[in-house]
Amino acid sequence: MPDPRLDVLCIGNAVVDVIAAADDDFILSERLDKGSMRLIDEEEATRLYAKMGPGREISGGSAGNTAAGVAMLGGRAGFVGQVAADQLGEVFTHDIRSMGVEFTTPVLSGVSIPSGRVLILVTPDAQRTMNTFLGAAQLLDIKALDEAQVRDAAILYLEGYLWDPETPRAAMERAIDIAREAKRKVAFTLSDSFCVDRHRDGFNALIDSGRLDILFANEAELMSLTDETDFDAAVASAAARVPILVVTRSEQGALAVEGGKRTDVPAEPVAQIVDTTGAGDLFAAGFLTGHAQGRPIAQSLRMGAIAAAEVISHYGARPEADLKALVAERLG
Amino acid sequence: MPDPRLDVLCIGNAVVDVIAAADDDFILSERLDKGSMRLIDEEEATRLYAKMGPGREISGGSAGNTAAGVAMLGGRAGFVGQVAADQLGEVFTHDIRSMGVEFTTPVLSGVSIPSGRVLILVTPDAQRTMNTFLGAAQLLDIKALDEAQVRDAAILYLEGYLWDPETPRAAMERAIDIAREAKRKVAFTLSDSFCVDRHRDGFNALIDSGRLDILFANEAELMSLTDETDFDAAVASAAARVPILVVTRSEQGALAVEGGKRTDVPAEPVAQIVDTTGAGDLFAAGFLTGHAQGRPIAQSLRMGAIAAAEVISHYGARPEADLKALVAERLG
Repeated sequence: MPDPRLDVLCIGNAVVDVIAAADDDFILSERLDKGSMRLIDEEEATRLYAKMGPGREISGGSAGNTAAGVAMLGGRAGFVGQVAADQLGEVFTHDIRSMGVEFTTPVLSGVSIPSGRVLILVTPDAQRTMNTFLGAAQLLDIKALDEAQVRDAAILYLEGYLWDPETPRAAMERAIDIAREAKRKVAFTLSDSFCVDRHRDGFNALIDSGRLDILFANEAELMSLTDETDFDAAVASAAARVPILVVTRSEQGALAVEGGKRTDVPAEPVAQIVDTTGAGDLFAAGFLTGHAQGRPIAQSLRMGAIAAAEVISHYGARPEADLKALVAERLG
Repeated sequence: MPDPRLDVLCIGNAVVDVIAAADDDFILSERLDKGSMRLIDEEEATRLYAKMGPGREISGGSAGNTAAGVAMLGGRAGFVGQVAADQLGEVFTHDIRSMGVEFTTPVLSGVSIPSGRVLILVTPDAQRTMNTFLGAAQLLDIKALDEAQVRDAAILYLEGYLWDPETPRAAMERAIDIAREAKRKVAFTLSDSFCVDRHRDGFNALIDSGRLDILFANEAELMSLTDETDFDAAVASAAARVPILVVTRSEQGALAVEGGKRTDVPAEPVAQIVDTTGAGDLFAAGFLTGHAQGRPIAQSLRMGAIAAAEVISHYGARPEADLKALVAERLG
């Protein structure tokens, strides 16, 4: 195989985040699970939007945020996801490209479904409660894949959220096969504990198929996946099934287990936590960029922690500061 | 005339702001006048957008920001402006209504022109350079006016920016006539010094027609309007031609002249100036709300200064903090 042209190719839901402040009473009265993501249809999206406060629209999507982070860290990043031919689709496309990410998935044609959006309610504790209308994103088809692009990336990175709708799940399965045939690495994030609840069997089957090289999870997702009640037991259980396991623990930092060896790093300091949206996505960006650069696990984890700390210091899940400079300053 | 149902009815360009960070080199290489607003067509909007960094979309528009500010300050606000039946139009409509502003202008029909947007480049010195594609906003027609709504507002407030395209200028002229017939007050902002350069004769004729009760200007706009080189001379010259003149002076505070009596107030303290977009709009909101509440000039000016200080402390020109509480805390 030739040297890879891209460091990381991310596949995920192409969505624009609509971010609004909300108080705990609103979350309660809407019977939402604070901190989680749920899927909603267009009707519910319209109803909830009408009740929300004024929003700011910032391009998002878990794997899209990761791709943006990789590019900001100096890595060569690509993104695959489906938008429609509408204003939100234009905004998504502009933003990800302007961050230096290769994004060439053709715009949806032949179907009149708007681009996806995530209504994100940010409570005063900086937690985000996400209500996702997938729209066009759920129509990412196998035919939209550029197989050469998949073969050209050192690491293929997939978001668990994409497991929800069937069409992109099939595209994701196909991309995994292409990457493995090309001897590339495959990384996967469990995305959200409720997502794991919905797809526990599918995720476990994917892991046990031996087709993943790197698995990302936070504590809640890991517990849900393994059905363990003790954190260390859950880490040990999952780590035995995948070459590299990476677990994020919010203010308790993060860890990775590779070949039975566990490495822990602390969280990076943050002056003020404004909006935790994107913390996991940017952690993955930092870790994957470090890994693609051949850095040791501990350094890759710290790159993840630095990128995550930046993105939670402001609204929106895309980095705003110069991540590459931040890493150079702190890691050398 | 019955008691007014609204305190302030604002007429202006209904636009969504697309805000991106930019460095001074970008402003220079694009030959833009830092700190000013220019009108661009769809082609230039597309070209510039492609070169800009990732953006955040936040509803804006000068008079729209003022209406949002009046509502946040506890006043009864309305807004009149034209959006198209598209996603940016939906975003604008949602945001202004969710701030408690009455917005009932029918969506544009029969013409395929998208909703307006302003590409705002924010430099590290927090200055904004605005590139406005008016789109549907320039098609605000006399027929879109709800005459009863105009009669029902204690103060009609108009933005000078709307003087640029002919169609809304005619609507604005008609609204002034309706308001005056109903014995309401008419307020006008000069909007931007380049806007004054474009329409100096028209603005002077409007002022000298005796149909304005309150005129808002910043220093540059006032100098451009009066063609004076000395600030105090410019204030005296303009003040003699309008019942109330309000002049904002950035970090030097603001002043008003009514019946020959000049009142100065200092600027409110701001921890960090992030984005000056909307400072003048929110100043007007504070002053107009105070004036509608029957407060003395000095207090109305301070309400303006408090609202302006809030909006420059974050990205976007719509207030985010509880302005009513801020005013209660500082003015009692």
